Amino acid sequence: MRSKPKIILTNDDGIFSPGLRVLYEAVKDLGEIYIVAPSEPKSAVGLGITLHKPIRVNEVTLWGKTRGFAINGTPSDSIHVAREVVVKDSIDLVLSGVNIGDNTSMQTILSSGTLGAASEASLMGIKSIAFSANVQSGEEFYKEEYSSIIKKTIRVIVSYVLEQGFPKGVDVISVNFPDEIKSGAYVVPAARLRWWEKLEERKDPRGVPYYWLYGEPTEPEPDTDVYVVHVLKGIALTPLVLDMSASSGKAYSQLNTIAKIVQKALEESTI
Amino acid sequence: MRSKPKIILTNDDGIFSPGLRVLYEAVKDLGEIYIVAPSEPKSAVGLGITLHKPIRVNEVTLWGKTRGFAINGTPSDSIHVAREVVVKDSIDLVLSGVNIGDNTSMQTILSSGTLGAASEASLMGIKSIAFSANVQSGEEFYKEEYSSIIKKTIRVIVSYVLEQGFPKGVDVISVNFPDEIKSGAYVVPAARLRWWEKLEERKDPRGVPYYWLYGEPTEPEPDTDVYVVHVLKGIALTPLVLDMSASSGKAYSQLNTIAKIVQKALEESTI
Repeated sequence: MRSKPKIILTNDDGIFSPGLRVLYEAVKDLGEIYIVAPSEPKSAVGLGITLHKPIRVNEVTLWGKTRGFAINGTPSDSIHVAREVVVKDSIDLVLSGVNIGDNTSMQTILSSGTLGAASEASLMGIKSIAFSANVQSGEEFYKEEYSSIIKKTIRVIVSYVLEQGFPKGVDVISVNFPDEIKSGAYVVPAARLRWWEKLEERKDPRGVPYYWLYGEPTEPEPDTDVYVVHVLKGIALTPLVLDMSASSGKAYSQLNTIAKIVQKALEESTI
Repeated sequence: MRSKPKIILTNDDGIFSPGLRVLYEAVKDLGEIYIVAPSEPKSAVGLGITLHKPIRVNEVTLWGKTRGFAINGTPSDSIHVAREVVVKDSIDLVLSGVNIGDNTSMQTILSSGTLGAASEASLMGIKSIAFSANVQSGEEFYKEEYSSIIKKTIRVIVSYVLEQGFPKGVDVISVNFPDEIKSGAYVVPAARLRWWEKLEERKDPRGVPYYWLYGEPTEPEPDTDVYVVHVLKGIALTPLVLDMSASSGKAYSQLNTIAKIVQKALEESTI
């Protein structure tokens, strides 16, 4: 790692989120820091990128004195703007967050913009760490005691990675903080499901039904990120690999049977 | 499997997409078919769901005679509307597509609405298959020769799964068709990256820069979905597991070292 590593900070709550400020304050002297983030909240956009309209990049002053680049795009767009417009040089690390709301479970990871930006960075060859906290609003980050623990944790993790290198075989580290830290730090895989989605039917004034979608939390499985953050109230460190292809031989042998039948059907057709 | 399995069809190009019609025609007599899909195209939304506005469900007549349910939401919303409003009973299988455009590579899978709906279904306990085709527009599905191969392939795969059961340990099967079928069917993992994203700078009439994001295709890696669809022009069958947690012991041991340092830092703080 270079003596002055180039580090991108981004998020999905928008460049003015207090969560981004916590992240900045935690790492500001650990390298050359560039802040590139959506100008407005862009939650739950996953890895979405902006293809059908032009992207604008506006320099803004954050917290009275820090330079940032606000874009009218998604968290993943921020990574590309950082690479091609702002830094124009190789980037050593991307840090995303601190998200308002935890991003525990595969269900949440797959739809999160915080993880989306981190994943897009990793796919483009830049290792990344996503930070999320189980808070209801950004106000929580103004509580000095809470944010100082978060900052200290972020600083320790980022310093380690810059000095010792990113863990081998890992694409993204996802770090989730509980609403109140009552326990230690645990390395755990992501749970599968966090929310059991339901629909509530209502009637509009004309008597026509409409529906509200809402999620009921599922029972946390032990030894998962959901369990650590919501039951143990500890800090969950989850190493992610951007690969969902099945690896079991059994899956492949069953699929191969299907492929053979498809093959035979194609050969039997006149085409 | 029940004699009349309940099957949901959905997509991300909108309920009036000819790709959905191809899917319907391929499987219409294989079970009790329910069509629930966004009323408008919702590409690249991943697993996004609609939380901040109510969802409307409108019954529509498709292709002159088939009942469908159009919703003002995302592909993932369709799964929940199907479960809770339309079917109100257990669902045996979700089929998503046929998408206009292939969904090869993890980069594309992670942002695709077609795969998003399939993944959300699987997370809610309903196995699913996503179908996508490397076509530029829905017009291609009107070419009889092309769509008959796609329909035959879909029918063979869905029939197999209904009769023999879903492949063990697999959450979602992703099937990608080439633009022209010149080769057979292959079982392959997803490539990692499909598009190297770039930004093109332009100046508006006032001389202020703006940027267009565009992707340049990366070199296809052999033995991946991208290679099969774009180089061999074959049909790619990719078994997916909704799990991105690292499984290597090395990843965990390095993360455990970080967790210990975090732990120590927390204990040393006055809190």
